[in-house]
Amino acid sequence: MNAITPTVSSGPLPASRKIYIKGTLHPEIRVPMRQIDLHPTSGEQPVTVYDSSGPYTDPNAEIDIAKGIVRSRDAWLSKADDLEQYEGRHVKPEDNGNATGDRLVQEFPLRFQPRRAKDGEAVTQLAYARAGIITPEMEFIAIRENLGREAAAQKLERDGESFGAEIPDFVTPEFVRDEVARGRAVIPANINHPEVEPMIIGRNFLVKINANIGNSAVTSSMEEEVEKMVWATRWGADNVMDLSTGRNIHNIREWIIRNSASPIGTVPIYQALEKVDGIAEDLNWEVYRDTLIEQCEQGVDYFTIHAGVRLHYVPLTANRTTGIVSRGGSIMAKWCLHHHKESFLYENFEEICDIMRAYDVTFSLGDGLRPGSIDDANDEAQFAELETLGELTQIVWAKDCQVMIEGPGHVPMHKIKANMDKQLEVCGEAPFYTLGPLTTDIAPGYDHITSGIGAAMIGWFGTAMLCYVTPKEHLGLPDRDDVKTGVITYKIAAHAADLAKGHPAAKIRDDALSRARFEFRWEDQFNLALDPETARDFHDQTLPKQAHKVAHFCSMCGPKFCSMKISQDIRTEAQKEGMEKMKEKYRKGGDLYMPADEVTPAE
Amino acid sequence: MNAITPTVSSGPLPASRKIYIKGTLHPEIRVPMRQIDLHPTSGEQPVTVYDSSGPYTDPNAEIDIAKGIVRSRDAWLSKADDLEQYEGRHVKPEDNGNATGDRLVQEFPLRFQPRRAKDGEAVTQLAYARAGIITPEMEFIAIRENLGREAAAQKLERDGESFGAEIPDFVTPEFVRDEVARGRAVIPANINHPEVEPMIIGRNFLVKINANIGNSAVTSSMEEEVEKMVWATRWGADNVMDLSTGRNIHNIREWIIRNSASPIGTVPIYQALEKVDGIAEDLNWEVYRDTLIEQCEQGVDYFTIHAGVRLHYVPLTANRTTGIVSRGGSIMAKWCLHHHKESFLYENFEEICDIMRAYDVTFSLGDGLRPGSIDDANDEAQFAELETLGELTQIVWAKDCQVMIEGPGHVPMHKIKANMDKQLEVCGEAPFYTLGPLTTDIAPGYDHITSGIGAAMIGWFGTAMLCYVTPKEHLGLPDRDDVKTGVITYKIAAHAADLAKGHPAAKIRDDALSRARFEFRWEDQFNLALDPETARDFHDQTLPKQAHKVAHFCSMCGPKFCSMKISQDIRTEAQKEGMEKMKEKYRKGGDLYMPADEVTPAE
Repeated sequence: MNAITPTVSSGPLPASRKIYIKGTLHPEIRVPMRQIDLHPTSGEQPVTVYDSSGPYTDPNAEIDIAKGIVRSRDAWLSKADDLEQYEGRHVKPEDNGNATGDRLVQEFPLRFQPRRAKDGEAVTQLAYARAGIITPEMEFIAIRENLGREAAAQKLERDGESFGAEIPDFVTPEFVRDEVARGRAVIPANINHPEVEPMIIGRNFLVKINANIGNSAVTSSMEEEVEKMVWATRWGADNVMDLSTGRNIHNIREWIIRNSASPIGTVPIYQALEKVDGIAEDLNWEVYRDTLIEQCEQGVDYFTIHAGVRLHYVPLTANRTTGIVSRGGSIMAKWCLHHHKESFLYENFEEICDIMRAYDVTFSLGDGLRPGSIDDANDEAQFAELETLGELTQIVWAKDCQVMIEGPGHVPMHKIKANMDKQLEVCGEAPFYTLGPLTTDIAPGYDHITSGIGAAMIGWFGTAMLCYVTPKEHLGLPDRDDVKTGVITYKIAAHAADLAKGHPAAKIRDDALSRARFEFRWEDQFNLALDPETARDFHDQTLPKQAHKVAHFCSMCGPKFCSMKISQDIRTEAQKEGMEKMKEKYRKGGDLYMPADEVTPAE
Repeated sequence: MNAITPTVSSGPLPASRKIYIKGTLHPEIRVPMRQIDLHPTSGEQPVTVYDSSGPYTDPNAEIDIAKGIVRSRDAWLSKADDLEQYEGRHVKPEDNGNATGDRLVQEFPLRFQPRRAKDGEAVTQLAYARAGIITPEMEFIAIRENLGREAAAQKLERDGESFGAEIPDFVTPEFVRDEVARGRAVIPANINHPEVEPMIIGRNFLVKINANIGNSAVTSSMEEEVEKMVWATRWGADNVMDLSTGRNIHNIREWIIRNSASPIGTVPIYQALEKVDGIAEDLNWEVYRDTLIEQCEQGVDYFTIHAGVRLHYVPLTANRTTGIVSRGGSIMAKWCLHHHKESFLYENFEEICDIMRAYDVTFSLGDGLRPGSIDDANDEAQFAELETLGELTQIVWAKDCQVMIEGPGHVPMHKIKANMDKQLEVCGEAPFYTLGPLTTDIAPGYDHITSGIGAAMIGWFGTAMLCYVTPKEHLGLPDRDDVKTGVITYKIAAHAADLAKGHPAAKIRDDALSRARFEFRWEDQFNLALDPETARDFHDQTLPKQAHKVAHFCSMCGPKFCSMKISQDIRTEAQKEGMEKMKEKYRKGGDLYMPADEVTPAE
C-alpha cells in the first residue's frame, strides 16, 4: 500500500491574517487568532475573531496529514513531573472491526508513546485548578477568550440578560482557573492530544459549538473524515465528535486526532459495540473498559458516557411517541433489559472516573433518554435521567475529573428554559451541552433551522456548547455542504446567544459589519461575514461587476433610490447644524431645524 | 403583441388532496384545506393542514392566468347593498412608469368595474363586526382556522405559554367577529379582490407569514412575478407583498391580484415615487392620493403607510449605526427634511382613512424608523415612532378601518420581548407584523436563519404575522429557490410559535410525523414534512432504492443497529407484562420487571 497524503482544505479566509499572541505566565504558549483587515477608507482597525481553524489557515504552517500537526503542548507536558510515558496498549484487530487487506485503513505512520498520570496523581485541569495552579491551558484560554477586548475596551458595553451567568469584563487566567475549580467550566484536553489548542466550555465564556463527523457502516474513508474535521473547524466548529460506527474506527480516529487542533470527543460504547459484532447484549464491562483505555491513550478529549440510563428508567419510555432515540441510550436500555441488571456503566462508574482522571479525559454525561419528538419533551424519563446525571456529577467531581452534561433533543420553545434551569439546579452548574433542541418535528430537511432556533435560545439561557444539526438530520448522511451549513447555522446560534447574554466583546463584529453595510463597503461586509464566500457569491449573482462592489447601492433598490444613501444624505445635511443642537431645539418645541432659506422648495 | 398565458406551478403536493368545507351561516362559501393521506399500515386518519396555495393545487381547477382565478367572493359582494360599482380610474402612462412599446407589460386581458362603498357607508370587516354582523369572510376564517380541531377533539392538549393571548379551544364565527370588532385581528380583503380566500391576522389565531415579491429597476417580468406569488403560496405563504419599484408596476400588479387567492399588500409610496421619477422631494399629497385610489380599485388588500415618520423624529436617527433602513421611511424622512414640513401622510391621515374605508383596505402602519442593525435596536427613534403608530391606530379605529402595526428589523434576543410588550401596550393589541427580527448582523447569506430565530421568538410572544427574509437579504434579489427557502424557514418559525403558544391543534402534525418516524413509515414522514420534495431527496441521496423506503433503519446507523428499532423491541418486550404494571412495580421498589426465566443470559 502506498503512503497516502491527501490534501485538505487550507489557506486563509478572505482578508484574514493569522496572528499569535504569546503568554505571560507561560511564555511558550502562542494563541492563534484571526484578524480581518478592513478597507483603508474605513479608518478602522482590523477585527479580531476567535479562530478554531488550527494551522490549516496559516500560510506558514507546513500541512502534511501523514505527519500530523504541531504538538505544541508537548513543550509543557514533557516538563510535568506527575506524568509518565509508557508503552501503552497495542492495536488489536477488533479495534478496527477486524478489517484486513484492502478494507483496512492504513495506520497513521507515526506512533507516539502515551502518557498517563503517575500512580495516585490527578493530572486533570480540575485538580490543578483546585490546587491553585494556573496551567498553560488556562492562560492560553484566557488570552483566547479575551480577543479584541483590551483593544476595544472603550467600546465595551454590558447590555444583555445573562440569567445568572457571571461573564467578566475581561477574562484573566485566574478567572479561568476559578471557573474550572468550581466545575462551571471544562477544558477538554487529553494529555495524549498535545496537538490541541486549548478551549473552554462554560457559560461564563463564549458559547461553543460541536460538529459531528464519523464513518458509518456503509461509507468509510479516512481521507473524507480528516477533511470533514478540517472543514468543520475551518468554518467555526470549536469541537469535533467522531461518531464512527463501522470498521477501521481505531485507525481513522488516529488520523483525525493527530491532525486536529480542536478537542475530539467520542462515544466509546459505539466502538465497544463494534467489538461485540453489534449485539448489545454481548457488551460487558471488560470490553468497554478496554475501549476506554484504547481511546484514552489515543488522545480523545472527552467521552460521552450514558451512565444515567438506569434499568428502572427504561419502562418510563415505553409509552413515548418516539421511545429512546439516543443510540447510546438504546444500547444500554437493551443491555439492561436483557440481563435484568443495572447498567454496567452505572455500576462501574467510579472505576471509569479513575481511568479518565489518569489522562484528563472530560466526562460528557450522555442523555440517553432525551426526547426524540415534541411530544416527549420534558417527560418523566428525561428528567429522571437528568437527576441521575446530577448525582454522577458529584461523583466525577469527587474523583477530580471534569464533567459536562448533555441535553436534548426535541423541545418546543416554551419548554426550553425549564431544561436549562433544571440542569443548573441538579448538576451544580456543570456546563450544559445540548443537541439543538429542535423546536418542531415537521420540517425534516430543515432541521438545522428548527434546531438553530432552540439552540440560540438555550445558549442564551446558559448552555455552554451547542451540538450542531445538519440539514440531513433524520434523513441521510451529511456531505461537505451539509457540514458547512450546520456549522454556520450553529455559529449564528452561538453568537446570537453571546450577544443576548451581554458578552462584552460579542457586538464588535456586528457593529463593524453594520458600519460596512451602511458605508457600502461591500468587500468588508463579505469579509466580516461568517461565510464570506457565500455572501460574495450571492451578491455577484445579481451584480457581478467589480464596479458594483464599490457602488453606493445594491440590487434591491437599484441606483435610483437607496434608503441607506438617503440616510447618509440626511446625516450629512443634519450635521450642517449639528445633531445635538437640533435635538435640543426640538425638545424646546422648535419645529424646524434648518433655516428655511437653505432649502430649495420642490415645486 | 401575442397573448401570453405562461404556465405556473400547479398540481397537488405529494399524497395530498384538496378538500372544501361548506359554510353553515353562509352556505355559498367553500373553505379549502389540504388532507395528507397516510399509509394504510398506520391505521391513522389523514392529517388536515392549512392550505394557502389557492386553486393551483386543485387538479379540478382550470388554471389560465390570462383569465384569473375564480372570483368566489363575487357571490356575496354582489348582494351587498352598501356597495356600488362605478367606472373607476383609467390607467395612466405614469402608472407604468411611462413604459411604452416592447417595454410595456401587456395589460391584463379583462377589466372589471371596481366597487366602492356607497356614500357614507363603512364596508370594512371592522364596521360589520362592530355592528354584530358575521360576514361570509368571518365564517370562512372560523372554518379555516379550526381545521382538524373537531376531528381531533379528544387529542387536544392545552400545553403552552401564550403571554396573555386568548386562543380558544375552537374558533367560532362569533369569536372571529369579536376579535375583529376589538381590533385584535384583521381580515385583509379589499372588496375589489373577490379572488381572495379570506384569512385572518391576530395573535389568537394561527401565526401567519408574508412573502415579498416584486420587480426592481433592473429586472422586470410579469410572468416571473406571477409565478413567484404562486410559488410562495404553494409552500405556505399566507400573504404576499408586491414591492415592485420599476416600470410596469400597475400592469404587473393587476396580473398578480387577478391570480392571487392570498391577500396582496403593497407600499403605495413606492409607486408614487416612480410617478415623480424617483425624486423624493417631488412627492406630494395629490400624487400619493391618486396612487391610493388606483390601488384600492385594483384590489390591493393592505397598504403599508409610513405615517409615523414625523419630521421631529428624523434627527433621532442621525447618530445611528445604520440610519434609516426602511425605504418608505427614508423617502418620507427626505421629504420632511427637504420641505421642513410635517409628513404629508401624517397631515392627511384622516383622508387616507376615508379612502381606505370605502374599499376595506387594511392599514399596515409602517415602521420607517425600524433598526437596521443590532446596535440600533430598541432605540429612541424606533420607540418614538411606535408611540405615534399607537396614536394613529386610534384614529384608524375611529374611522372604522382595520389596522396592523409593522415591527423590526434587527434585534438581539434579549430585546425582542420588549418590542412585543410595548407594541401591545401602545397599539391597543392591534396585530403586530414583524420583519424577522434578525438576531445578529454577522451572517449575510444566512439571514433567513438569523431572522428565523427572532421570528419564532416574537411569534411566540404574540406577533400575528411574520414577514419572511430570504438568504439573499442584504445581498441580492431572491430567486425561486430563495423564495422557497424563505417561506419554509418562516413556516417553521410560525409553527414553532403556534406550538409554544399552546395552539390546541398545532401539535397534531408534529405527532403524526414523529409516529411515522418511529414506525419507519418513510413515505409518511416525507409527505407530512413542510417540504416533502427536499425530505425525500435528502433521504434518496444516501439510500436511493425503493426498498429503503420501507426499511426499518436509516443511513445514520445502518441496518445493524438502530435506536428506534431497539426502542420498539423494548416496547414489545415490555408490553408482555404491561407497562403500567411495570411502572407500578418499580414505584413499589421492585427492581426487575420481567421474570428472570424469560431471559437468555448473554454469556
